[in-house]
Amino acid sequence: MSQRNVYLSMIPLEQAREITLREFGSVTSKKEEIPSSQAVGRVLAEAVMAAASSPPHHVAAMDGYAIRAKETFHASESHPVFLKEMENAFPVNTGQVLPGDSDAVVMIEKVTQEEKGLRLEAPVFPWQHVRKIGEDIVATEMLFPATHEITPYCIGALLSGGVRSVPVFMQPGVLILPTGSELVSAERDPALLRPGEVIESNSHVLGRLAESCGGRWTAAPPIRDEVDLLASQLEEAALREDVDIILTVGGSSAGSHDFTRTALEKTGNVLFHGITMMPGKPVVLGKVCSKPVFGIPGYPVSAILAFEELVRPLIRSMLGRPVIHRKKCTVFLSRAIPSRLGLEEFVRIRLAEIAGRTIAAPLPRGAGCITSITEADAILRIPANSEGLATGAETTAELLRPIEEIHNTLLVVGSHDNALDLLANHLKPMGIRLSSAHVGSMGGLLAIRSQSCHMAGSHLLDPSDGSYNKNAIARILPETPVYRLHLAVRIQGFIVRKGNPMNIRRTADLLRPGLRFINRQPGSGTRILMDYELQKNTIFPGDIEGYDNEETTHMAVAAAVLSGSADAGLGIAAAARALDLDFVPLTPETYELIFPAELMQTPQIQAVIRILSTKTFRESLKALGGYTIENTGKLTGPERTPPEKT
Amino acid sequence: MSQRNVYLSMIPLEQAREITLREFGSVTSKKEEIPSSQAVGRVLAEAVMAAASSPPHHVAAMDGYAIRAKETFHASESHPVFLKEMENAFPVNTGQVLPGDSDAVVMIEKVTQEEKGLRLEAPVFPWQHVRKIGEDIVATEMLFPATHEITPYCIGALLSGGVRSVPVFMQPGVLILPTGSELVSAERDPALLRPGEVIESNSHVLGRLAESCGGRWTAAPPIRDEVDLLASQLEEAALREDVDIILTVGGSSAGSHDFTRTALEKTGNVLFHGITMMPGKPVVLGKVCSKPVFGIPGYPVSAILAFEELVRPLIRSMLGRPVIHRKKCTVFLSRAIPSRLGLEEFVRIRLAEIAGRTIAAPLPRGAGCITSITEADAILRIPANSEGLATGAETTAELLRPIEEIHNTLLVVGSHDNALDLLANHLKPMGIRLSSAHVGSMGGLLAIRSQSCHMAGSHLLDPSDGSYNKNAIARILPETPVYRLHLAVRIQGFIVRKGNPMNIRRTADLLRPGLRFINRQPGSGTRILMDYELQKNTIFPGDIEGYDNEETTHMAVAAAVLSGSADAGLGIAAAARALDLDFVPLTPETYELIFPAELMQTPQIQAVIRILSTKTFRESLKALGGYTIENTGKLTGPERTPPEKT
Repeated sequence: MSQRNVYLSMIPLEQAREITLREFGSVTSKKEEIPSSQAVGRVLAEAVMAAASSPPHHVAAMDGYAIRAKETFHASESHPVFLKEMENAFPVNTGQVLPGDSDAVVMIEKVTQEEKGLRLEAPVFPWQHVRKIGEDIVATEMLFPATHEITPYCIGALLSGGVRSVPVFMQPGVLILPTGSELVSAERDPALLRPGEVIESNSHVLGRLAESCGGRWTAAPPIRDEVDLLASQLEEAALREDVDIILTVGGSSAGSHDFTRTALEKTGNVLFHGITMMPGKPVVLGKVCSKPVFGIPGYPVSAILAFEELVRPLIRSMLGRPVIHRKKCTVFLSRAIPSRLGLEEFVRIRLAEIAGRTIAAPLPRGAGCITSITEADAILRIPANSEGLATGAETTAELLRPIEEIHNTLLVVGSHDNALDLLANHLKPMGIRLSSAHVGSMGGLLAIRSQSCHMAGSHLLDPSDGSYNKNAIARILPETPVYRLHLAVRIQGFIVRKGNPMNIRRTADLLRPGLRFINRQPGSGTRILMDYELQKNTIFPGDIEGYDNEETTHMAVAAAVLSGSADAGLGIAAAARALDLDFVPLTPETYELIFPAELMQTPQIQAVIRILSTKTFRESLKALGGYTIENTGKLTGPERTPPEKT
Repeated sequence: MSQRNVYLSMIPLEQAREITLREFGSVTSKKEEIPSSQAVGRVLAEAVMAAASSPPHHVAAMDGYAIRAKETFHASESHPVFLKEMENAFPVNTGQVLPGDSDAVVMIEKVTQEEKGLRLEAPVFPWQHVRKIGEDIVATEMLFPATHEITPYCIGALLSGGVRSVPVFMQPGVLILPTGSELVSAERDPALLRPGEVIESNSHVLGRLAESCGGRWTAAPPIRDEVDLLASQLEEAALREDVDIILTVGGSSAGSHDFTRTALEKTGNVLFHGITMMPGKPVVLGKVCSKPVFGIPGYPVSAILAFEELVRPLIRSMLGRPVIHRKKCTVFLSRAIPSRLGLEEFVRIRLAEIAGRTIAAPLPRGAGCITSITEADAILRIPANSEGLATGAETTAELLRPIEEIHNTLLVVGSHDNALDLLANHLKPMGIRLSSAHVGSMGGLLAIRSQSCHMAGSHLLDPSDGSYNKNAIARILPETPVYRLHLAVRIQGFIVRKGNPMNIRRTADLLRPGLRFINRQPGSGTRILMDYELQKNTIFPGDIEGYDNEETTHMAVAAAVLSGSADAGLGIAAAARALDLDFVPLTPETYELIFPAELMQTPQIQAVIRILSTKTFRESLKALGGYTIENTGKLTGPERTPPEKT
């Protein structure tokens, strides 16, 4: 292990942003002139004045005759005025220029053609039905000030005002330098990756983010972990005319292969290293040839947050545009969120509107989990001086999606089943997003008790009578009337390696010497089933190697078998099939969606009930394999009415 | 005048949208496969499943040594365990694959290198500091359902999940056919337009709007007003594989040159003609070869509204996406808005936050005023069965800008001065938008009285003592303490044609036979000045030709002179200079910004005070010409304290 960097003293995010903007946040001096019609999304570098008036002449606002108003002033029913076509009354269509010195338009319905000419029985006011020159835009007036962002509507005003091209700021050029010897281009077939090779995805995410705030971007191929290589690339990049901001990705931390800071020290100087935020701690900011170089951490969520909190405000300020803050929303926590003192933490959360309250459920907190941000509806910032938030706490979250989308979210918590993905896919085109958190069957029922989900996916066997869910509901939700919506009967069994090399046939086979089992977490229906199977076979759990290794989803159990870290685990056929593993059927079980009776009329739940009754859904479910669909969509309950309030 | 179409019975907008979506609103069957990294903004045509797990192996989550946890279970301070590097302890960096059957990582800080090997004084738990295979994404799990719209974050999940390309809906192809013999391409130099020629701008606006909701677009060159030409183009367009929606622009009304409906009847059929909305009444929807053809009105605001209300929902529904509704906001009307029974009216309004209330001021209502929508902050829908809204009425508006931008708006009502454009340009980079309505000095003071603006631009001369604004304020705002912020002393004079061909030198010259004057509206400071001048010279207004022709801004007066419809008007030098006219100085006058004392601490007003004191602003103002800047930025008042409340 070679030399290790240390962080300089870490600074708060607020301070890091201040340094960034103070050093580099001035409006760019690079301008270009582009056609107005192509300027949507661009920012004006100078105020734009109209070059022409609109309308450019007095024009008819109606179909009719252009006339001189004063010739009609004495017209009345008893003393009509007669006008001569092409002499002092000129036919005009809407939009046509008024001919000669005419100053009004009379609608065609108001005149009658007679031998003496066009008969008019009422005076016409000057400028009636006329759009006067400059009524909309007067030449030389300011159309838009500098730093105005052009929208499609603006194009209309620009072209009408005779402005064919506009001076805009050049889009700040962002050069992305992914670093890491393990990285391979995203074009490589992932099936052909060698162990240790990792698809380089951050540059694409960061590039598209740069675009979303008005930047241009290019990315270099991944750079090997060699400090001199990085330093020379930095130097070269900083001299490029088209580069305004450099982002190195990965290698910004303090490990033996983290060279960003050293490379910055060789080529320029370091402004800060380390921010008291999580994820996103290992950010470096340096300056090479007066250009900003961000050392962006390699974990995808860290990379995104570092961009959003530092690079986005910088690009916006280079364009003279204010930072757009995320919309905020009051939420109630479904679970406690402990947090480390001294770090501002960005917790990604799911949101759902349940019984009139917006409920927040925290997502996995690892910076490596990109899905923790793609699944997230909002971000909760826990300040550095807080040890976290308690269950039920009311707090403010920053929205990542429009609030409408959150109102249309169905939050399903509990046991995981692949049929939920299928359900999600059927709900989506109806405008309903299924958001699902996998915490096991018991966790789902507890979430219903705390009113922190719409539905719970559950398959809790009662060994005493072979029933599912009913008794657990009676125990856990004694006061909540609930419905049970039958999703499917599915087969639980052992997920084993292809070809079943250890020839596992029944539960007792798990005792074989050398066999490594992978278990599910306590509270999951599968764990209860497993423990029931062991009890039935009078097997002592401690005798099974790996009994204490736990995963929280069927898929994770299957993945453990696929990777070779385990030989067998209890799970559903769909998970085995998904990873091309073998499956040893053990027992059928009932999987239900449980929901409080009071949510019955919620549109999301009504949609689920409707979908489950369709042939399309049932057939797609059957096609997944391992499901019996006879009772799919059957609704039971509520078996209890709420106790009378006294 | 040739044959005239009539509208079929007009239908409400709601019904027009229903017909549109019922006939054409099904999800497109056209799909394509595109690289994931280029899919931002596109909509998934099918659910996307992960092709690879992430991480694809168990990997180190820390720098340290990969070990087998069970070999450390009995480690303690008194009985340390010694591990051998490269035998049962392998150096790993964050992100590296765990070698062999190691199942945990011990941080480098937790071991000490000794002769016997790496000393470890505490047990290590299995999977400690390890990111397990599939922790983020398990191969085959659903990443995103069909009809999901890809964001930059999603790119990260797709690439990490081994998905290099995704199936997306093809972007609905919109073909725009502008019609009208008067139209010329936007590439033509507007200075070289012949009278009657109009720059074709709608296709660019509509095209960019189509892009903004996920469509592609192309526009044909303008088509002459000939029904057979239009019909043959429609037929040809409808047969094109890449065209899904056709928009003809202009000619959709019922005038003698409105051929859209006739062309539709020749080539397909008409589903409706005429919607009870304003602007946007003359919309036609037809069907040619099963494709939708919208006849979009040619007035720019009508075109935009027709697109937003009908075409946008259609494109969204073809992509399986829900319509996004505009955010709403409660507003109070600064002025009454009468409205025609039987038409749903879309009134464009300015908004500003004044003393805690959001105030709405209606913009010009003509469908030809593109600036009425580029200036608009929101739209007020007045239902067909309403005759309008009263002053002060509380109602709901649909926002066209983020509410933050409205909170940062400075609303200046009153007299117009070019210096306001300059001020706008200085405020904009500070994140403050100046929104100004030109209703004359008196109108500005009245707006302050009704608490419907931040500041009033005013130059109200009191002929009795030669003072400006002071006496008018005492009369109009007896109970409102206000500040007066001196903007500049400017010169008022006669705006005349280049070379002053009628040799106008003084007020009495306006009496010359054949001279046509253009006046300002009553209540404007300029009108008061004009009337004072006439009085001083004992001239009877009725003796001046054109005295009754009124314009509401200096620029409009200048435009009237430029167009030749008037020979002289009273106004400011800047307006004359702007249109390259001549200017005959008459008298200097004081222009002030008046604001209520209670708004003194409003950030927008503080910003104005700051800007007016800068050298940059004063020099740019001086450069405009015709301004004296000695007292610019001087603050006077408040001259009254509010009467004690009893």
